[in-house]
Amino acid sequence: MLGSHYDTVRDAGRWDGPLGLISAICCVADLHRRGRRLPFAVEVTGFADEEGVRFSSTLLGSRAVAGTFDESVLNARDRAGVSMREALKKFGLDAEHIDTAARARRELLAYVELHIEQGPVLEQNNLPVGVVTAIAGATRLAANLSGVAGHAGTVPMALRRDALAGAAECIVAIEEFCKSDQAGLVGTVGYIDAMPGATNVIPGRVSFTIDIRAPTDAHRKLAVADIVRKIEAIAKRRQLVLQLDITHENRTVPCAPWLKAQLADAVAAEGFAVFELPSGAGHDGMAMIDIADVGMIFVRCRGGVSHHPDEHVDVADADAGARVLLRLIENFRPRS
Amino acid sequence: MLGSHYDTVRDAGRWDGPLGLISAICCVADLHRRGRRLPFAVEVTGFADEEGVRFSSTLLGSRAVAGTFDESVLNARDRAGVSMREALKKFGLDAEHIDTAARARRELLAYVELHIEQGPVLEQNNLPVGVVTAIAGATRLAANLSGVAGHAGTVPMALRRDALAGAAECIVAIEEFCKSDQAGLVGTVGYIDAMPGATNVIPGRVSFTIDIRAPTDAHRKLAVADIVRKIEAIAKRRQLVLQLDITHENRTVPCAPWLKAQLADAVAAEGFAVFELPSGAGHDGMAMIDIADVGMIFVRCRGGVSHHPDEHVDVADADAGARVLLRLIENFRPRS
Repeated sequence: MLGSHYDTVRDAGRWDGPLGLISAICCVADLHRRGRRLPFAVEVTGFADEEGVRFSSTLLGSRAVAGTFDESVLNARDRAGVSMREALKKFGLDAEHIDTAARARRELLAYVELHIEQGPVLEQNNLPVGVVTAIAGATRLAANLSGVAGHAGTVPMALRRDALAGAAECIVAIEEFCKSDQAGLVGTVGYIDAMPGATNVIPGRVSFTIDIRAPTDAHRKLAVADIVRKIEAIAKRRQLVLQLDITHENRTVPCAPWLKAQLADAVAAEGFAVFELPSGAGHDGMAMIDIADVGMIFVRCRGGVSHHPDEHVDVADADAGARVLLRLIENFRPRS
Repeated sequence: MLGSHYDTVRDAGRWDGPLGLISAICCVADLHRRGRRLPFAVEVTGFADEEGVRFSSTLLGSRAVAGTFDESVLNARDRAGVSMREALKKFGLDAEHIDTAARARRELLAYVELHIEQGPVLEQNNLPVGVVTAIAGATRLAANLSGVAGHAGTVPMALRRDALAGAAECIVAIEEFCKSDQAGLVGTVGYIDAMPGATNVIPGRVSFTIDIRAPTDAHRKLAVADIVRKIEAIAKRRQLVLQLDITHENRTVPCAPWLKAQLADAVAAEGFAVFELPSGAGHDGMAMIDIADVGMIFVRCRGGVSHHPDEHVDVADADAGARVLLRLIENFRPRS
């Protein structure tokens, strides 16, 4: 099965999702035009709502196909108050029949997806395509540091319990720790709020988020534990009260070694250097892993920009990706 | 002249301002009760709106007395749209006569103010009163760091231009620099905003404020220059675009050495250890310096808390402050 998703991000680019679908359709069209018959079927599947923008529920289509659709999300409502069940009905679908979309592992030889990288690694390495090693799992944490608010002029530095200075030290420590890792660990503090938030008041309380991803679950979990220990030590030394909660956790989905090997052969056969990289973003393979071995090929995008109208893939790179996918299909050997 | 201000902070404490007025009134009452006559007049003045809460214009009353009232602020409006001119009229005052409040330097021997510390230094030193060395000047800056927003999962650490990680490094550097100073320098980052502010997006832009105060202007200006250089270096190394603007600057008001000496004598005569400290907060002396030498005495407050209902001064400490003020008045020798 070849798949990818329709794009459901608002104000997004044209390539995230559709590139994989159109590339797969082009491959099948080319095989058809040349009258090339294969000893297995090629299915092209476009999954609905991988992003979860409207109902905050990701991997909708692929979970239905994998037989892991969570029926409770049918009651989720969008901002206009429309439930997913109502939205499906309005679209001409019947939520009662979602289970008929489920496929069994025995029906599938493999699940392969071509997707834009959504990151800058291939561009930095001057390569049009790359072989994905794993879809990285993620742990998200919410951190809250409480110190003592005070007058910016009257509290000497030595007597402060400044929650923002403490949070800043945590952010620098998270960055330093992830930078020193040589195996694909990334850590991001994307949100911060300092209270009361006035120029002349020492912040008494700060909230921030932490997003940690790594190519393996073991690696990520060790990293999260190390980062938590570092933050706890910073809070303790500064006499700040720390609250740290895991708000979200996604397991890592490794790509199957036998599919990686065939993808690498296809890349090499098309004359490109074989380059492996993890996917930091989520993909439908995270659902499809439950019923099939997963392989992924990444295509270079400009500046790593995605989920934005500036998202761009050169036509030559789209062509390279499609050729690798076609080569994979033509040379495909089912797992022995 | 003995002065302080009426309290105009909303939801504040009972001591900030009124303690100085009531202590001064108590001193005069005691002199009167004892029939003690002095070779100079003692005036007690309660200044209006030192804080500038309603019209965002500080030192209103003391500037009028100092003859430096800025008439343009009469047109400032509060949140309800009422101008200061209208508010004065409604209160029974005539803005046209503000200049009649002005006093001349030759009329005044000195300006002395008793005030709660609004900081934790006296409490830490286990002392009820302290002699103020200067009302610290302040420089406020608005900093803006621009990097590149990106997906928290797809951009490797080495390729990031994370504006929040950069800002965090700046905040840590500001704190470290001010902590290493042994002469009363304080630096505060009270406000921060990271954009776009989502858990899974590397911040592309961060705004934050910096408030720097020191007991002398020269010290503060050197410190600001050093801090600006540090921030510029951090931005450059991280390939972040920095915009840094001074939004506010207040000169330091030194307390007169001859008044400090007489205040120290009064403190010692009342049996307390003489302890000097700068004022990080602003006071009416900042306006009165234009027509009189300024002296200030601080009274210990609980936990350094001010501008808050929890603001508290022990009665024994209020008594100590009033006794020192009375002793100063009785032993007062005009500048020779």
